[in-house]
Amino acid sequence: MMNERIQPLEIQKYVKLSQRNDVISFAAGLPDLSVMPLEQLKEAYVQLLHENSGSFQYQAPIEALKQKIQKMMASQSVFCNLDEILITNGAQQAIYLTANLFLKPKASLMIEEFVYPGFLQIANMFDLNYLPIPSLFNQGLDLNYLESLLKTNKPLPFLYVVCNGHNPLGITLNTQIRKELAVLAEKYNLIIVEDDPYGYLNFSDEQFLPMRAYTKNAIYIGSFSKTIAPAVRTGWIVAEKNIIQKLQQLKDMNDLYCSNTNHLALNTVLDKYPMDEITYPQKIHYKSKLECMINALEEFIDIPCRYIKPKHGMFIWLEFLSNQFKLEHDRIFHKSNVLYIPESAFAVGKSTGKQAIRLSFAYPTLDQIILGIKKLGDTIQKSAGKNFMMPCEII
Amino acid sequence: MMNERIQPLEIQKYVKLSQRNDVISFAAGLPDLSVMPLEQLKEAYVQLLHENSGSFQYQAPIEALKQKIQKMMASQSVFCNLDEILITNGAQQAIYLTANLFLKPKASLMIEEFVYPGFLQIANMFDLNYLPIPSLFNQGLDLNYLESLLKTNKPLPFLYVVCNGHNPLGITLNTQIRKELAVLAEKYNLIIVEDDPYGYLNFSDEQFLPMRAYTKNAIYIGSFSKTIAPAVRTGWIVAEKNIIQKLQQLKDMNDLYCSNTNHLALNTVLDKYPMDEITYPQKIHYKSKLECMINALEEFIDIPCRYIKPKHGMFIWLEFLSNQFKLEHDRIFHKSNVLYIPESAFAVGKSTGKQAIRLSFAYPTLDQIILGIKKLGDTIQKSAGKNFMMPCEII
Repeated sequence: MMNERIQPLEIQKYVKLSQRNDVISFAAGLPDLSVMPLEQLKEAYVQLLHENSGSFQYQAPIEALKQKIQKMMASQSVFCNLDEILITNGAQQAIYLTANLFLKPKASLMIEEFVYPGFLQIANMFDLNYLPIPSLFNQGLDLNYLESLLKTNKPLPFLYVVCNGHNPLGITLNTQIRKELAVLAEKYNLIIVEDDPYGYLNFSDEQFLPMRAYTKNAIYIGSFSKTIAPAVRTGWIVAEKNIIQKLQQLKDMNDLYCSNTNHLALNTVLDKYPMDEITYPQKIHYKSKLECMINALEEFIDIPCRYIKPKHGMFIWLEFLSNQFKLEHDRIFHKSNVLYIPESAFAVGKSTGKQAIRLSFAYPTLDQIILGIKKLGDTIQKSAGKNFMMPCEII
Repeated sequence: MMNERIQPLEIQKYVKLSQRNDVISFAAGLPDLSVMPLEQLKEAYVQLLHENSGSFQYQAPIEALKQKIQKMMASQSVFCNLDEILITNGAQQAIYLTANLFLKPKASLMIEEFVYPGFLQIANMFDLNYLPIPSLFNQGLDLNYLESLLKTNKPLPFLYVVCNGHNPLGITLNTQIRKELAVLAEKYNLIIVEDDPYGYLNFSDEQFLPMRAYTKNAIYIGSFSKTIAPAVRTGWIVAEKNIIQKLQQLKDMNDLYCSNTNHLALNTVLDKYPMDEITYPQKIHYKSKLECMINALEEFIDIPCRYIKPKHGMFIWLEFLSNQFKLEHDRIFHKSNVLYIPESAFAVGKSTGKQAIRLSFAYPTLDQIILGIKKLGDTIQKSAGKNFMMPCEII
């Protein structure tokens, strides 16, 4: 009598294998703790443990933390009141609550062809008719296709997007596309749910604004997991007040409260260190890993493929262009002990037939990146059976 | 387009009013922090902050904490493997996940006439046909009625119960009833979900075993919120392995991980202090508050009423027996500044027509209990318009 729509994620298999000591993993999207403000966080815990015992009671999130988030949002041109912010147990809960507020069983849902599996798994619970939206190489979300769906298919007016460092595609939507998407949102009363875990990890010189800076139809989901620490389990939602109220009620029934101790520690860290100061070394660090991986790809992957150089985030999406061979993922892992995540883990319809893989450059060391890509290149080349000499297309 | 089944809880209104300084609150079910091992918990945090930084990464719950839970369960004759335990973000999440695994839209659900609102709110999401089960005074769940429903109404084979210190009724099911319920569970393939936040707060000399000690059809939900601290946000589920696997998948999509820092601190506390040692002073403390409230009720409530003396938990359910007056809750609060929760907040069908209120004795001080019950007695008596001289029936 159990709900049969609950199914395990393919990605979990890779996350488990990642933990093996003999494996170089480009699979899990883990942040690198060495550039996170853990000493400052520890200090904050110790300080609050000496000062405050009320923090151990059942307690709603403290206002001071909401004010910090309010300021962070304002610096990205999103101006909101405190009652337009909900603090959640990580961004995953924010996605879950939002989906549960808006998705309807058996509806037609527009969804990107490749999507964050943590959203796909939730959507799968609703027995939906998926309307996959393709992505344009180096540009992302195909807005013409989106509008054609809106015009003809009467989909649920709901769209989940990752505008900064798309997971898995690595694409950052440019400002023009964001503006056009906002226009569509207003025209079709479309709710845009922007999941933004990587916004602060911006390796480019451009500033990109959240969708909510362009339209109140956008709901923003933020996270401290990639900048302060995953274990503080703190994400947030910015939306209209009536939506936040409903999400709060859903959260109450979901898990009542977050860990207030974590919120207090987080707030103390943010009191002393502005986000820009915290994230500056992170950007430098991840950018150097990204460049290291790109150099390694150029050097060691001799098979026709293409990828873009991401402006945000943790991932390179490597797409092989030949159909003269088939990537046998299990065999490649077995031979190389290098782990990545194949496209099927992100594809809405199980697999698009594309030969693509997601490589995370955030967690492994520089040495692991070089060695891992070399091993991967060698193994794939052998597995392909012959040498392709065409270089990769990098953008 | 928002999900219209999401509705606020009546109880939230009272929880908010509880925070006013001029109010004596018997409303919120808050534990008394003064008897919780907060110093030990703080020490544990400080210790782990000096030792461990990996605890800030995305991380599954540590095995050591599961082993502690395994031992706690074994001491209550529930023997389980580690893969039969799921650690959750508080017991509320455990209830939420379990309900979402088993409840089906538009099904018929057997549900106690008075029930924990945090469960009712979740059930309300499923558009169910409720089959309310009455409670026998001083005995609880009417098993004959339950069996008649099972025989004739084809309900969903799912029953949510609180066997120790029922919320709101305060009743502890005796061992005979537990055994009979287990027999029914086996006979009708009924899944019993036992929510047990108060099991360790046992004021009697009897030991009561969880339903899972009698039948594998029972799922057990435990919590550290009433014994260690609410803010550690740690509950757990014990169930068959295949059920735990599905609940784990649901949890993954719900919020990915709990705060591992909290688990490590909790584990360190439990390494040094066995649960019996932690809960012994709590039992004494709450028992003295319970007795203080009962004495005050005897002294200050002169209107015909009845209640049982609870063996577990935090609540006295005070039922007025006269229908010559009607409790006007808002007016009583306005006049007395004493807060309680009326029966309508717990009734499955909005109100049963009973004149009953839930009084929590756990959080207020002894002085507040005496003063609060005196004010309440005076106000209700005046509001009733005349003096009833019949004493209360206490069992």
